[in-house]
Formats: sequence, C-alpha cells, structure tokens
Amino acid sequence: MLERRIAIVGAGLIGGGWVLHFLRLGFKVHIYDPAGGSAERLADAVRANWPLLGRLGLADDARPDRIVWHGAAADAVREAAVVLECAPERLDLKQGLFAELDRAAPPDALLFSCTSSFTISEIRGRTARPARCLLGHPFNPPHILRLVEVAGGPRESEPVRRAMAFWLSVDKVPVHLRKELPGHLVNRLTAALFREAVHLVAEGVADIEDIDRAVALGPGPRLALAGPFLNYHLGGGAGGIAHYLEHLGPSQVARWKTLGAPELSEEVSARIVAGVRSETAGRSVADLAAERDEKLLRLAELLS
Amino acid sequence: MLERRIAIVGAGLIGGGWVLHFLRLGFKVHIYDPAGGSAERLADAVRANWPLLGRLGLADDARPDRIVWHGAAADAVREAAVVLECAPERLDLKQGLFAELDRAAPPDALLFSCTSSFTISEIRGRTARPARCLLGHPFNPPHILRLVEVAGGPRESEPVRRAMAFWLSVDKVPVHLRKELPGHLVNRLTAALFREAVHLVAEGVADIEDIDRAVALGPGPRLALAGPFLNYHLGGGAGGIAHYLEHLGPSQVARWKTLGAPELSEEVSARIVAGVRSETAGRSVADLAAERDEKLLRLAELLS
Repeated sequence: MLERRIAIVGAGLIGGGWVLHFLRLGFKVHIYDPAGGSAERLADAVRANWPLLGRLGLADDARPDRIVWHGAAADAVREAAVVLECAPERLDLKQGLFAELDRAAPPDALLFSCTSSFTISEIRGRTARPARCLLGHPFNPPHILRLVEVAGGPRESEPVRRAMAFWLSVDKVPVHLRKELPGHLVNRLTAALFREAVHLVAEGVADIEDIDRAVALGPGPRLALAGPFLNYHLGGGAGGIAHYLEHLGPSQVARWKTLGAPELSEEVSARIVAGVRSETAGRSVADLAAERDEKLLRLAELLS
Repeated sequence: MLERRIAIVGAGLIGGGWVLHFLRLGFKVHIYDPAGGSAERLADAVRANWPLLGRLGLADDARPDRIVWHGAAADAVREAAVVLECAPERLDLKQGLFAELDRAAPPDALLFSCTSSFTISEIRGRTARPARCLLGHPFNPPHILRLVEVAGGPRESEPVRRAMAFWLSVDKVPVHLRKELPGHLVNRLTAALFREAVHLVAEGVADIEDIDRAVALGPGPRLALAGPFLNYHLGGGAGGIAHYLEHLGPSQVARWKTLGAPELSEEVSARIVAGVRSETAGRSVADLAAERDEKLLRLAELLS
C-alpha cells in the first residue's frame, strides 16, 4: 500500500465512512472534527459496522481503536501522506481549511476534498500548492461502494497519477474527470434522473412509491451491473450500440426533447415528503440505511 | 391465476421473453409471428433459458413445448383471455394489428401493447373497443425483471383494475400511469440519465468506459435497491427527504440548470461506438446478455 499515513478532517457521514474504510484496511487514522459529540458518534458507528467490515475483509492489523483524535486540523495532517477533507459543504469554510491544510501538511502530501457541491478549483484557490489539491469524491457509503471521482489536473500530471495509484492501492476504483463540472460525474447523472422523476410527480403521472418501485424493479438492477452505454449496447440486439444508435437514436433524441424542467416547488416538495413518509411506514432513516448497507454488501459480494 | 389463455403476437426479443415467462408459470402460449425463422429462434431461446427459468421456479405443469403456433394473428387470439402485442415498433403496423386483434379476440379479452415508442392511445385508435386496449410495457428481460407499466385508462376503470390484478397474478409488479407520455415512466428516467451521459462524452469530461464503470460502482447498486426518492431520503440524514429538500434542494435545482442538451451527432455516436467496442473487448452481445441475465437472476434472488 502506497500511503499509510491518513488524516481525515471532518468525521460526519462521509468522513466517518472513510474512517471505517481505512480502519478495515489496517490504517491508523488521524482525525480532526470540531463538532460536539463527534468522537462518540464515530465510536458508535465503528462498533455498529465492525461486523460488516469483517465481511468485506479485515487486514491483519485492523483494529477498531486505531484512531488518533487531534484538537486542530493542522495537527491532524502534520505527518499525513494523504489528507481527506470531508467538512460541511460551505465554500468559505473549505477554502480556509484547505489553505490551512496546505500549510500544515508535508509538501509531498496529497490533499483530497470529498465535496459534492463545489469544484476543487473553487476550493483550492487560497492554497500555495494547488496542484496537489484534488477532488476525491466517493459515493455514499464510502466503506462499501468502490467509486472515487478524481479531478483537478490532467491525467498525466504527477499528482493525478499518484492519486489514481493511491486509490487503487486502497481497494477503490478511481475515475478521472478531464473537466470540472457541478456535481462532477455521477451526481449529474442521478440529478438528471431525479429531475425527470420530479417532473413526473409534478405532472401527476405516477405516485412517489410507484416511481421508486419502478426504478428498483426495472432499470435499477441493470444499472448495478453496467452503465448506460453498455446497457443500450445490450438493447441493440446482435448489432449492439451501433445498431441501437442508428435505429433508436432518433427516438431517444425525440424523447429528450419531451423531458421536463420542473420547479421544486413547495407543493411538489410536500407531495414528495408525504410519498416517502407513506413508503417508509414509520421506519427510521438509520434503520433503512442499515438495511441498505447490508444489501449493498451482499450485492458487492455477488458482483465481485 | 386469473387468465390462463395467453396469446403473444410477435416473438422477438420482448415477445420471446414473455413466452419464457408464461411457459415458466405453466401456461400454454399461443403465438403468431410471421418473421422467417422465428419458431426456430424461439425454440433455441427456450432451450437455452430453461435452466435459468428453473431457478426462478417452474410451475408443476411448466413444459418447454407448451407453445401453439398460428398462421394468422386472428387465429392466435381467437380464444385468448389476454393478448400481448410485441410487434416491431412501427405505428401503422401496430394500429392495423390492434384493429385486427380487437375484432378477433373475445369481447372480454384484455389487449396489451408492449410498445416502448408509442402511447397506447396512438395504437388503439382504429379499434372498436379501445378501453380494453392497454399499455403493458415490461423492462427487458421480461422473464426476469418484474416491472410492468400499465397505462390507457383511469386506475378505477374496470379494464385497468383487471389489468393490475392480472399482472399481479402472474408474478409481476404493475405500476399504473395516470397519463401517457413518450417513454412512459422508466424509459424517460433512463433517457434523462443517458442524455447527461452523452453530454459528458460530448464535452470530453470522461471516457465511455469510465462513465459506465462509475454508474455500476456508484449509483447503480443503490438504484437496484430503491428509487430516486428513497435514495435521497437516505441522503438526508436523520431528517430524511424533508431535510434533504430543504437544505440540498436548491443545489439540486442549480445543478439541473447546468445539465446538458447534447446532439447525438455522428462524431459523438462514433466515440460511443468505439468506447463500447473497447469496453466489451470482442465479446458478443449474446454472450454479454447471457452474463447479464445470470447476474440479474442472482440479484433478484438476493433481493427477494
């Protein structure tokens, strides 16, 4: 493994998931998180998830207590080879934090932001060494799903090459983006799907529960196996994607022109909230998330 | 089971999948398909898929040869309780066919079109009994995935109520659409996702293989478990979807405004074809589809 000295700044939902991931691989994890009660919440999460991490495979030296808390971000990253910034999604906060991390971390450390809302170019604006500050965006939960989106430099630049090698070395599949866009890559795809789902709700085409059910029983399982291009390749018969694009491409383009551009109005939001409430029938988010994680793990076992 | 007398008009990819499904449940299936070699192709498909159907669960009276071929559509549907039209996607062909099916089938039969390109209102225009002509749109492969989209009448109308009961009785999950739209429901959602994927290719953000990999390792597994609303509910922390919409709704709406509206130009199409060719590395569509079906089956077993 390339870089054993990991620091995680912000141990909430995403940062906490990264902690689980690196504990599983036997890392000692240095953490800074100023939020009240964060150490207790993280300890609870480690305890609750340790059996699941065991099923993913524990390294010989994996222990649930290999966590070192620090009272300042600069202290947490002082000896780090890799820093993961998972602070709240506020641009000024992240900009200031990155300037501080850049000053305190060793000059050859890689600094990743887990931001979902901003581009790394926005975040690293106040650093002295912006080239080593990169996007490292996981897909929740980061201790189970293997995708990491990397952006912030050309594929052949030294920091990006090191970043790709690092993520591969820690059991992740990095995907490099040549350009920075709001939402990076997959959150743009899910936003596009969500926009149309909201349109169908706004138009009264189907209920929330029916839309969720339709996705999970139709395209969802296929998207767990393959992305959109490979899916349409299999929809093209023996001629594959070339046949599909030639014969059904025009009908796709015609359909695109009919897709909606809804407002997320208060009325539509209220219908979504009511629909999800009916769908989840009193079960807590924590309970639903635990069930999801259990199923994601079994799915990962099945597909690996 | 409600309606045992099934007729399938058109036994290609989708119609053939329906044949497999109903053979598995022990039905005798009446078929009309004028395409040359269709009987041999279907027999091959039944033989190749019988072990897979066995794992899904064969009815006691399921036999691979309970197929009755007819030389005319009218003959195939003469005694049917349920007719599934899966002819090629040409509107004039389907309109003429539905007029013929409507004349020949018993007055109380339900007639479903599997069309993905047209609305049922367009297709049933020349029938004498349009109310009993409905959309019954599966998601490929129909012998594995359980979704059926039903449209063409109000939820409480007698034909729609019978249609929903029929699909439930044959191990499917019907979702009723209150309005007809191009692409019905899920194909609009996948079209929205595909449009943004094409945009990212056109903009040079990422390679075809990376986009496919990112979906399958990120949002795909979650969409196999739950649809978009439930996914964002779990992204909202303890406050669920209400918290998500309140705090991250505006950033979703802002992201929607940045989504692309690409052309499916010859140049972009060529890049997609080249990317998929590289990704599939010489494997045939049939081989890839068989692997997909095997994995979908195991996924269905896991999630059921």
